[in-house]
Amino acid sequence: MNNIQTNTKRLAEASRTEAFSDAFFAIAITLLVLEFKLPEFEEGKLSESLFQMWPSLISFFFSFTYIGIIWLNHHALFNHIKYVDANVLWINLGVLFTTVLLAFPTGVLADAFRQGNETDKGVAVALYSISAGFMSVAWIPVFEYFKKHPELLEDHSSPEFFSTQRIRPWIGVAFYGLAAVIGQYMPLSGLFIFLLMVVYHAYTSEGNKLRKSKKKHPQATE
Amino acid sequence: MNNIQTNTKRLAEASRTEAFSDAFFAIAITLLVLEFKLPEFEEGKLSESLFQMWPSLISFFFSFTYIGIIWLNHHALFNHIKYVDANVLWINLGVLFTTVLLAFPTGVLADAFRQGNETDKGVAVALYSISAGFMSVAWIPVFEYFKKHPELLEDHSSPEFFSTQRIRPWIGVAFYGLAAVIGQYMPLSGLFIFLLMVVYHAYTSEGNKLRKSKKKHPQATE
Amino acid sequence: MNNIQTNTKRLAEASRTEAFSDAFFAIAITLLVLEFKLPEFEEGKLSESLFQMWPSLISFFFSFTYIGIIWLNHHALFNHIKYVDANVLWINLGVLFTTVLLAFPTGVLADAFRQGNETDKGVAVALYSISAGFMSVAWIPVFEYFKKHPELLEDHSSPEFFSTQRIRPWIGVAFYGLAAVIGQYMPLSGLFIFLLMVVYHAYTSEGNKLRKSKKKHPQATE
Amino acid sequence: MNNIQTNTKRLAEASRTEAFSDAFFAIAITLLVLEFKLPEFEEGKLSESLFQMWPSLISFFFSFTYIGIIWLNHHALFNHIKYVDANVLWINLGVLFTTVLLAFPTGVLADAFRQGNETDKGVAVALYSISAGFMSVAWIPVFEYFKKHPELLEDHSSPEFFSTQRIRPWIGVAFYGLAAVIGQYMPLSGLFIFLLMVVYHAYTSEGNKLRKSKKKHPQATE
Repeated sequence: MNNIQTNTKRLAEASRTEAFSDAFFAIAITLLVLEFKLPEFEEGKLSESLFQMWPSLISFFFSFTYIGIIWLNHHALFNHIKYVDANVLWINLGVLFTTVLLAFPTGVLADAFRQGNETDKGVAVALYSISAGFMSVAWIPVFEYFKKHPELLEDHSSPEFFSTQRIRPWIGVAFYGLAAVIGQYMPLSGLFIFLLMVVYHAYTSEGNKLRKSKKKHPQATE
Repeated sequence: MNNIQTNTKRLAEASRTEAFSDAFFAIAITLLVLEFKLPEFEEGKLSESLFQMWPSLISFFFSFTYIGIIWLNHHALFNHIKYVDANVLWINLGVLFTTVLLAFPTGVLADAFRQGNETDKGVAVALYSISAGFMSVAWIPVFEYFKKHPELLEDHSSPEFFSTQRIRPWIGVAFYGLAAVIGQYMPLSGLFIFLLMVVYHAYTSEGNKLRKSKKKHPQATE
Repeated sequence: MNNIQTNTKRLAEASRTEAFSDAFFAIAITLLVLEFKLPEFEEGKLSESLFQMWPSLISFFFSFTYIGIIWLNHHALFNHIKYVDANVLWINLGVLFTTVLLAFPTGVLADAFRQGNETDKGVAVALYSISAGFMSVAWIPVFEYFKKHPELLEDHSSPEFFSTQRIRPWIGVAFYGLAAVIGQYMPLSGLFIFLLMVVYHAYTSEGNKLRKSKKKHPQATE
Repeated sequence: MNNIQTNTKRLAEASRTEAFSDAFFAIAITLLVLEFKLPEFEEGKLSESLFQMWPSLISFFFSFTYIGIIWLNHHALFNHIKYVDANVLWINLGVLFTTVLLAFPTGVLADAFRQGNETDKGVAVALYSISAGFMSVAWIPVFEYFKKHPELLEDHSSPEFFSTQRIRPWIGVAFYGLAAVIGQYMPLSGLFIFLLMVVYHAYTSEGNKLRKSKKKHPQATE
């Protein structure tokens, strides 16, 4: 009896961090809608005001999708984790911090492409690259730490999984660094790289190759 | 012992998506209040400023009720679901995305009826129709997917339930399409259709006909 | 085995509504801080700008405390509830809706006392009274419904408890109605009634008289 | 069987307060991003506008870190707590209230150092000191109360732990009082004290000396 109870309490540890992170992602996503402000319109000119908002709409859709994908990554990660210690909490805060911050450069990007010149676009691409690059950097300790601490993992998980994933944040760092440089001269190609990275993170959200087809639909235990 | 534990973990899967969605709905609803900004008022003219806000109040009440109803629908849906896979997470994000977006066209609708002419009202009705139509579209894969994946359902649920529900989002698409067209000529009738759809979704929030009266108050197990 | 599982699922019902409501209260409270905007200040005049904010600070403190108290009331209520049905979800939405709305008239009250004349203050007191009155009204069906549906209650609870509580929302309706009338002539006495009601709700947050001293600190089971 | 069920319910008590607080911290942190508003920029001058935002960025980073640390403190605290009573709920609301309020003086601090003179900086430092001092004060009853109510604690915890921690909020009160005074003459040294206190709270987030190295990685029970 005592065992069950203790176990429940300790499992709750990882669950609480998951719940906190989930609330965080949920709020970060919904706050994006606050960016949606209808500019004043003259009588009969509502449609024109709305059409001027399309960069905001694209920016909103992009941010929503990206944060959603990062949430899927986070979700997949915590499927492997049973316990958390203070270091994990710090690492997790780093991931959340860089994620929520990304909404700001995304908005700047939309503004720069709506009303800025080529220099402004380059600056906005660089700002986004740096911010997204930091987000990739924040994931580096995630994989390093769990690789070294198998005692925090679920029974069905293994440190090798985390070894395989270690390359992923570095790919992010490399491509966002590339975007920051190229984007100075060809802002549109910066946008293309950003799109590419979203697709990459979506595709690998459950981890590189490993464990893709297996155990998708667990048979009911009883 | 091991069985219980594993089972708990897997049930937690669906619970986590539920909790994330709940936080999402809670935030989307409360953010609506932020739209409530008292305009500047001259000394002694507070009541006039307040009376000018009535379209915002109606818009707030409408949005609050609609998101509340969608939450009830979502709640009823997850009563049938035991496990989630990555596809469900994506489908769920689509539902949340289109729901939270709806606050924007609702606000535009209030603005158009307060200060716009007939053209503006038509535009606002069309915008709302398109946004609400997308929300209906987002529910189509929900029913299709669970119909094909009975292994994700609760023991007490059955794929037939999802077959019965499939018609519901299509009704939404049809009526919102109708509203977008009619609303160009008769904006008020667009509003009437919107109201009708809210009532429809409220009435069917626990599913079409099926399982209405049964198992409402489960007898205590022991 | 099957019994435990089913039971867990059904208990989760009430828990989910609790969690949703908690997220709601948490967001409603934190959104209050957004009202805190420092007005522009001239160099060397920061302290003056800050001193002009004191009605906002009082308003914030008041709203925070009141929503906190309503949350305590809600918390105490759900200690008695084991299962929820669709009606409870609707009743609960009504409580949340009227609670979150209260932040708006509270802000209007602060504005009216800062920059309005006696007429404005009367209007603001009336607006607050109506809004707070609606909040009291929203609690009426709570007690009525659970009194009639003992099958939704926890084992340790009883319908009599809900009979005893039925008077409380009516007291709110009566006093807020009084405040709306008196406040037209003596705005400050309206404020006094508002303060009185907050104290009343704080004092009765765990229910009228009943169950105050008992079962506060449950002995550990094992 | 009945024992497990009851126990689960009662454990849920503390869990609900934890979850509420977590949602609170998550929202308080993400709301900070709303402060991030890109000022209007002229064509070709985006980079200049961005550079003017650095005090906001530092302020954001600082607030994010500080609230994150307070959350870690709160998390560590609740690891010791099994049951909550109405008093704990009130004490907890006090902690949350003073925490969420802190974002405001942090923003004022950033504004004062960007566009104010020495007097403004002194005022902003004093305001922050008072607000942070209140936050320290809010933690005093936390340790006092649990020291006197061992029946609310987890089995593995002890009242001595809370005796040891009692000194910590008083250190906060003392240093923030010092900062309020010194900051009038040397605003920058006020900032230094604020930084020092963040580091102090980070370092002691799991409690003074006690229980640092032990039970970090619980061995799997089975």
